[in-house]
Amino acid sequence: MSTRRALPSVDELAAGVRAGDRGLLARAITLVEGRRADQRARAQALLEELLPDTGRARRIGITGVPGAGKSTLIEALGLARIEAGSRVAVLAVDPSSTLSGGSILGDKSRMNALAQRTEAFIRPSPSAASLGGVARRTREVMLVCEAAGFDLVLVETVGVGQSESAVADMVDAFVLLSVGGTGDELQGIKKGVLELADVVAVNKADGDGQERAELAARQLQSALSLGRGRHAGWRTPVRTISALTGTGLEDLWSDLDELWSTLEADGRLAALRREQRALALWGLLRERLEDHFRGHAAVRGRLADLEAGVLDGTVAPGRAAEELLRLWSPDAD
Amino acid sequence: MSTRRALPSVDELAAGVRAGDRGLLARAITLVEGRRADQRARAQALLEELLPDTGRARRIGITGVPGAGKSTLIEALGLARIEAGSRVAVLAVDPSSTLSGGSILGDKSRMNALAQRTEAFIRPSPSAASLGGVARRTREVMLVCEAAGFDLVLVETVGVGQSESAVADMVDAFVLLSVGGTGDELQGIKKGVLELADVVAVNKADGDGQERAELAARQLQSALSLGRGRHAGWRTPVRTISALTGTGLEDLWSDLDELWSTLEADGRLAALRREQRALALWGLLRERLEDHFRGHAAVRGRLADLEAGVLDGTVAPGRAAEELLRLWSPDAD
Repeated sequence: MSTRRALPSVDELAAGVRAGDRGLLARAITLVEGRRADQRARAQALLEELLPDTGRARRIGITGVPGAGKSTLIEALGLARIEAGSRVAVLAVDPSSTLSGGSILGDKSRMNALAQRTEAFIRPSPSAASLGGVARRTREVMLVCEAAGFDLVLVETVGVGQSESAVADMVDAFVLLSVGGTGDELQGIKKGVLELADVVAVNKADGDGQERAELAARQLQSALSLGRGRHAGWRTPVRTISALTGTGLEDLWSDLDELWSTLEADGRLAALRREQRALALWGLLRERLEDHFRGHAAVRGRLADLEAGVLDGTVAPGRAAEELLRLWSPDAD
Repeated sequence: MSTRRALPSVDELAAGVRAGDRGLLARAITLVEGRRADQRARAQALLEELLPDTGRARRIGITGVPGAGKSTLIEALGLARIEAGSRVAVLAVDPSSTLSGGSILGDKSRMNALAQRTEAFIRPSPSAASLGGVARRTREVMLVCEAAGFDLVLVETVGVGQSESAVADMVDAFVLLSVGGTGDELQGIKKGVLELADVVAVNKADGDGQERAELAARQLQSALSLGRGRHAGWRTPVRTISALTGTGLEDLWSDLDELWSTLEADGRLAALRREQRALALWGLLRERLEDHFRGHAAVRGRLADLEAGVLDGTVAPGRAAEELLRLWSPDAD
C-alpha cells in the first residue's frame, strides 16, 4: 500500500529500475501496463531508455491445464534458480483477466515462498481488451524486468484462446506441463499446443501417480515423434517430474539449459529474438489497423449489416469487403 | 483455343454458368480470377448474381507431400463419384504458382481420364501475389462451380506456406494424404497439419508398400489419439489405401460421407459455413488493410528503417508502431 506520491519522471523511473528499486520497478510496470494516451507516451519513452539494458534474460514460457501444477512448478523452479544465483521474474498472460484483476498469479499466496524472496518478482497478468493487448504489455513488462537485472523470466499462461502461441512468440523456450490421467484427460492438451512445446513435463509423478505419469509421458513421446518442433534439430524431451517433491526438476532445467546452449551456439537465439521483435511489431500494427477500421464511423454504420449478410450467404465476402473498404477510405482500392 | 470474342455481359455469364456451358464457365472463372479493377467489379457483380445458387456442394480439401499420390487419389475418387452420379470440380491452392501458371493441376495429363469426362471440371491454381489472394480466388471459383451444378468440389493443395489452413478454412472436410516410409519420411507432415485433418489416408498400401503403410497408419493413429480434431465428437479415422488399385477408396468415401451426415444432422454444417464466410470476409479485410498501410507513401518512407531498428533491438516495437501509425493517419490514436 503506497500513499499517493508525485509522478516520478521517466528518467527517475529508468534509474530506479536499473538500480533494482522495487517500488520504482512496480511503478514503471504500472506505467507500461497503462492504457491512457499520456501513459502510453511516457511508457514508450521509458522503454526506449531501458532498451539497451534488455535482452539478456532467459525467457521461458510455461503452459498447462488448470490443476497441472504450474504454480508449484514455477515456485520450485524459481527457488532453485535463486539458489543458483539467479534473479527471477514471473509474469503471466491471461486474456480472461478483468479490469479488477482476477487473473492467474493475482493470488501470490499460491507462490508464497517465492514471493517472499527479494530475488524474485511476481506480477499478475495485465488486463486489456484483447489478447494482443495483454501480450504486448507482458512483453514490455518483461523488458522492464530485464533492465532491472532479472536474468530469468518465466511467463505463465493458462491457455485461454490463442494465449499459448502469444507466449511462445515472446520466449526462447516453451514448456508444456501435463499430468497423467485417463486417455480422456490427456486430450485436455489443446490443438497445436504440443507442437509449440520445446520441453514437455508430466507432473505429479509421485506416490500412486507415478505410473499414470509414465504412461502419459510415453504417449506424449510417441505423439511428438511424428512432428517437428519449433527449433530445427531439437527433439522435444518428455520428462516425468514432481513439482511437489522436486523429482526431475534438475533434469528439466538441464533440458532447458541444453536448448539454450544449442540456440546460442550457432546464432539462432539472435535470429529468434529478431523474429520475435518483428512479430511484436506486426502484431501491434495489425491490431491497431483493425481497431482503426472497426472504429471508423462510416464502417461502423454498415459493418453489422454487411457482416450479417455475409454470414447468411446473401452477400459475397468480396462485395462486403469492397464496400466497407470504400467507406473507410475512398482511395483504398 | 478460343478466338477473341466480344466480352459477354455479367448476365450472359451467369446464365451460361447456370446452364452448365463449359465455355462460359471457363470465361466466368477467368473473370473471377482477374486482377484488374474493372475485372474485380464485374466479378463481384457476377458472384452476387450467382450467390443464391451456391453452397450446395460438398467441399473437400486434400493435402499431402509431393509424391504422396494426390492426383491419383483425386482422379480415382472423382471417377468413382461420377459413376455414382456426381459432377466433380477439382481446384487447387498453390501460392507458388506464377503468372505464367506453372502450378499443380496445370498439367491436366496428370488426371487424364478425369479431365476427359464432361461431368468433371479441372482448374489449376489461380496465380496471385499472396496466399490470401490465391485463397480468395479459389473460394470464389468454388462458388462459380457450385452455381454451375458441380455437387462435389475437391480442393488440392501442395502445402506451401500456410496453404493447408487456407484450404481447411474453405472446405467441410480436410483429407491428409500420407505415405508409408521410414520414420524420417513421416516427419514430412508439417507442424499443425495433422490437427487440421478430418480423415487421414496412407496411400500406396499395395505390393511391398503394404507393411510400411500399415506401420505409418498405426503411428498416425497414435499421434491423433492425443489431439482433438476440428469437429467436436469426430475422431479422425486413419485408412490405408491404394489410389492405384482402388483399395480402401470406398471406405475413405464412407468416412467422408459419415462426417458429412454428422455435421449436417445437428446444424453444425450451417454453422461451419457461416464461420468460413466470416473468415473469408475478415481475411480479405485484414489483407487489404495491411496492403493499404504498407503502400502509404509516408509509411513506405520510414518502414524499412524502423523495422530494421526493431529487428536490431534498438527501437522498441511499440515506439515504431506508434510512429508508423501516426504517419499513416494522424488520428490513428
